[in-house]
Amino acid sequence: MEQTVAFIGLGIMGGRMVKNVLKAGYAVRAQNRTAAKTEALRPLGATVASTPREAATGAEIVVTMVADPPALAAVLEGPDGALAGCRPGTLVIDMSTVDPDTSRAMAAKAQARGLRYLEAPVTGGVGAAEHGTLTIMAGGTPEDFAAAKPLLESMGKKILHVGPMGHGSVLKLATNVVAAGIIALMSEGLTLATKAGLDPTMVVEVLAERSPLIGRAGPRVLSGDFSPNFPLRLAAKDVRLALDAARVVGAPMFAAAAVGQVQSAALAKGLGDFDQSVMIRVLEELAGIESRRAV
Amino acid sequence: MEQTVAFIGLGIMGGRMVKNVLKAGYAVRAQNRTAAKTEALRPLGATVASTPREAATGAEIVVTMVADPPALAAVLEGPDGALAGCRPGTLVIDMSTVDPDTSRAMAAKAQARGLRYLEAPVTGGVGAAEHGTLTIMAGGTPEDFAAAKPLLESMGKKILHVGPMGHGSVLKLATNVVAAGIIALMSEGLTLATKAGLDPTMVVEVLAERSPLIGRAGPRVLSGDFSPNFPLRLAAKDVRLALDAARVVGAPMFAAAAVGQVQSAALAKGLGDFDQSVMIRVLEELAGIESRRAV
Amino acid sequence: MEQTVAFIGLGIMGGRMVKNVLKAGYAVRAQNRTAAKTEALRPLGATVASTPREAATGAEIVVTMVADPPALAAVLEGPDGALAGCRPGTLVIDMSTVDPDTSRAMAAKAQARGLRYLEAPVTGGVGAAEHGTLTIMAGGTPEDFAAAKPLLESMGKKILHVGPMGHGSVLKLATNVVAAGIIALMSEGLTLATKAGLDPTMVVEVLAERSPLIGRAGPRVLSGDFSPNFPLRLAAKDVRLALDAARVVGAPMFAAAAVGQVQSAALAKGLGDFDQSVMIRVLEELAGIESRRAV
Amino acid sequence: MEQTVAFIGLGIMGGRMVKNVLKAGYAVRAQNRTAAKTEALRPLGATVASTPREAATGAEIVVTMVADPPALAAVLEGPDGALAGCRPGTLVIDMSTVDPDTSRAMAAKAQARGLRYLEAPVTGGVGAAEHGTLTIMAGGTPEDFAAAKPLLESMGKKILHVGPMGHGSVLKLATNVVAAGIIALMSEGLTLATKAGLDPTMVVEVLAERSPLIGRAGPRVLSGDFSPNFPLRLAAKDVRLALDAARVVGAPMFAAAAVGQVQSAALAKGLGDFDQSVMIRVLEELAGIESRRAV
Repeated sequence: MEQTVAFIGLGIMGGRMVKNVLKAGYAVRAQNRTAAKTEALRPLGATVASTPREAATGAEIVVTMVADPPALAAVLEGPDGALAGCRPGTLVIDMSTVDPDTSRAMAAKAQARGLRYLEAPVTGGVGAAEHGTLTIMAGGTPEDFAAAKPLLESMGKKILHVGPMGHGSVLKLATNVVAAGIIALMSEGLTLATKAGLDPTMVVEVLAERSPLIGRAGPRVLSGDFSPNFPLRLAAKDVRLALDAARVVGAPMFAAAAVGQVQSAALAKGLGDFDQSVMIRVLEELAGIESRRAV
Repeated sequence: MEQTVAFIGLGIMGGRMVKNVLKAGYAVRAQNRTAAKTEALRPLGATVASTPREAATGAEIVVTMVADPPALAAVLEGPDGALAGCRPGTLVIDMSTVDPDTSRAMAAKAQARGLRYLEAPVTGGVGAAEHGTLTIMAGGTPEDFAAAKPLLESMGKKILHVGPMGHGSVLKLATNVVAAGIIALMSEGLTLATKAGLDPTMVVEVLAERSPLIGRAGPRVLSGDFSPNFPLRLAAKDVRLALDAARVVGAPMFAAAAVGQVQSAALAKGLGDFDQSVMIRVLEELAGIESRRAV
Repeated sequence: MEQTVAFIGLGIMGGRMVKNVLKAGYAVRAQNRTAAKTEALRPLGATVASTPREAATGAEIVVTMVADPPALAAVLEGPDGALAGCRPGTLVIDMSTVDPDTSRAMAAKAQARGLRYLEAPVTGGVGAAEHGTLTIMAGGTPEDFAAAKPLLESMGKKILHVGPMGHGSVLKLATNVVAAGIIALMSEGLTLATKAGLDPTMVVEVLAERSPLIGRAGPRVLSGDFSPNFPLRLAAKDVRLALDAARVVGAPMFAAAAVGQVQSAALAKGLGDFDQSVMIRVLEELAGIESRRAV
Repeated sequence: MEQTVAFIGLGIMGGRMVKNVLKAGYAVRAQNRTAAKTEALRPLGATVASTPREAATGAEIVVTMVADPPALAAVLEGPDGALAGCRPGTLVIDMSTVDPDTSRAMAAKAQARGLRYLEAPVTGGVGAAEHGTLTIMAGGTPEDFAAAKPLLESMGKKILHVGPMGHGSVLKLATNVVAAGIIALMSEGLTLATKAGLDPTMVVEVLAERSPLIGRAGPRVLSGDFSPNFPLRLAAKDVRLALDAARVVGAPMFAAAAVGQVQSAALAKGLGDFDQSVMIRVLEELAGIESRRAV
């Protein structure tokens, strides 16, 4: 018998992931803050709900995929929130990237209502979301992980049980800090080399040996294509959450803090909705390099 | 007719590269500051010279592969230096990683003696040096690049003519800054996650998706193996040279500067001869994480 | 007729400030999380309350002086919170250092109950708290500022109306970031000079020309006296809140972010309750300089 | 009997210092790279020399006050350099700000010619240079310090013998890093507060409590007056030399490295000849704050 999954949050990532859930044969009750995005799912067989609570009503599993901790609170809590619609025993899986304290707090609220809770943030970007090849880093009990695994396998290729609640978030934040840092380093290296007179295309070709992220982002930067694979706004949020988590556990992150300031400067220029690689614009502006494209 | 190559500098990298030159059929006149390393080359057919000048005498091409700008000056200049031993028209190829100003200054000195000069720094590490699969980034005239190419092909797989003198150095410094930064970011992420209680092995597995450098360095860090693939001392020197070059051309490098300070802290602890991944020891010490191995 | 002031929060700063309020002739209803600190005030004429609500009951003005935003919420909100004890028209003056968003949120909650609210963070440290010579940076309406001014004059020398709600917090955070940064720079300069072999006393004497903060903190560092003038824990909190506020308004703070990481490293070593100058221990440890005193 | 002093380098600082030497009754042989500046000294009784060598000829003491290590080498070394003009036993006093290695190298060259050498960098800025109230931090032997002291007292108020050769430079670099950092922190705090809507004048008034440097630089920044008290170019050079010295002795400087990058960004914008406080333009530009004055 097919399970019913409430899927809440249909942005760049969620909108792609839900399609793989549908393909895998689950009944889906979809909900998004702005209704337009849900309509495209109707022809694929999804039921559209107008509130998170309505989506959760009657579902065995609730998946949330939203932007940040406040957005997660907004879809789970309150009279229209998903928690209010769940019957006891429902498994809530948050696939958003939040900090470990948020995961633990939300898990406690769900458990207080007799619900089960798993954090399961993902990595891999838009392409992996589309092709169902995400890496998923789950934190929670072994039982909840086992219950979630079949559904997670419809969206991801590498499904890891990282540890107890909060550990999934920490690992996700760590990997996103590394990603943001690599993009920042590419930006600094490319700006240096360009200012020194080198051919940017050759620079990107060589730097790409250092990371597949550079292989993907570099050529797009060169063509002035900053359409969001992973928006700067979210990348900056993750660095901030990682720095917060690091402060809480007591781990200094000198390089990450510097990356966070370059992101801040790019956000200050109003570039938050572009791909995180847009942070090169800050360095290019400071270095007096003409924009590759007006953004 | 076989060409004679003077190969000066037989360290971690040079000692491996020269073997591929020998294999390719060149006559080699080898020289190293400490003589012990040259002896191993005799059975392979190399002639051993006691000074850079002696090595250069009679060679058509002189290759230098040393640690930093002062070491390069030491092997090229002065009465025992290679330049003094070259006959006019000899092609000097410096494969060390130096800054663009050093390359330009050395090229000028060589040209003043009627010699030809190409900078040709490499990337790829010990493994690529061993297997002749280095990436080589040459700066100089097209004619000198063409003359050097057959020899460079014995050591590398991707042989790029990056531009005029100095451009090869800039690109090499940029790519090494990115590499050092990736190792620093891995170290910060791994320290955060470990302090938060995660299994370091799983953390490395996930972070390795971000860069093959993490895939190589991460498992070695976990096993406490800090034997040098690329020594911290040289990695720190490259970050410093990159920051210098960036200041000269006018390009800020916020993340790289922070990476440089983490390296400085590791150097202050006397860890310069270990692999650059040893910089994680600084972060672990600050975070109060027990050493994986006494270094 | 004398006014009744509820004074909530009697830590390092509040415990000194309240005495100047008593000296100025106000009737004081004192309350602190841990009761011990209130007892010393009884002989000075203060009434001791067991909850913030009880302290606020019957007071014309409520002053709060606590550690951070969560502590402020804890004393103002909830059934035992001060807001619940205030009659309409009471003026709540928060003298804690919080972020502008917290000030605005608390002001809104107070105003929703018909109360008046002024933020009035202070600078000057323990000495100025003791001698009633604090600088006070108020944010709120001109009317609320005028109503608060006589009371504020009992505690401070320079009483500024900085602007509307939130502006006082921003200025306080900015000035504390500068202070933390100066202590960090002193620590870096002193560590460099000490490691280079200089006499630390002469170094402090010269650096003290740069800032009175160095003149005060430097000699104490040299004698290994890290008793808290301003505890690292609070200094680090302020840098974090400043970085948060800067991100919100769109202003990069590269140096402040680096300072925050040095603080983080000191916090990770468990030094949060010592004076913020204890952050030099991080740099000295990294530089291999023997501790001036076991902390 | 009056002593003859060769004074080489008549820039912003040297041009003022030499006047106090003249006032104290010394015979002065003045020399500057660009001759225009020497002419103003003729009416005050100075003899004008056309080369450093000529200035040094017949002098008992040679004072140098130039921009950086290469400029120092240029005036001391070579056939027209001051060293070539000195008779044995002459005391050379370098008052420029250089790194300790440069001081030691120059001292060795002077001593090899039978000369005496003292490094004596200064702090206090243009005002103190003008009024003869500089702080002077000398490194060298006690005998050379004693011989130099009367002359130094004509230019400074606090004359310190810091230690052996190199120690004066280290202390000077440390104090200049602290100064540059304070200006950077003021810039960051002022940018944050201005972007948040505060009145910049009030912000500067409050931040000025943290450091007399802010008291001097702040109001000038507000009026858009970036005429050089201490040019950014030299301030950035000193931070770089301090970071180099710190790396050599093994002392990390996280905050200073971040300050160095903000300076680099300002240099990249071509602002090197303005006062170091011009680095606020980098932060304002990133924050989207309109320039106070076109620079």
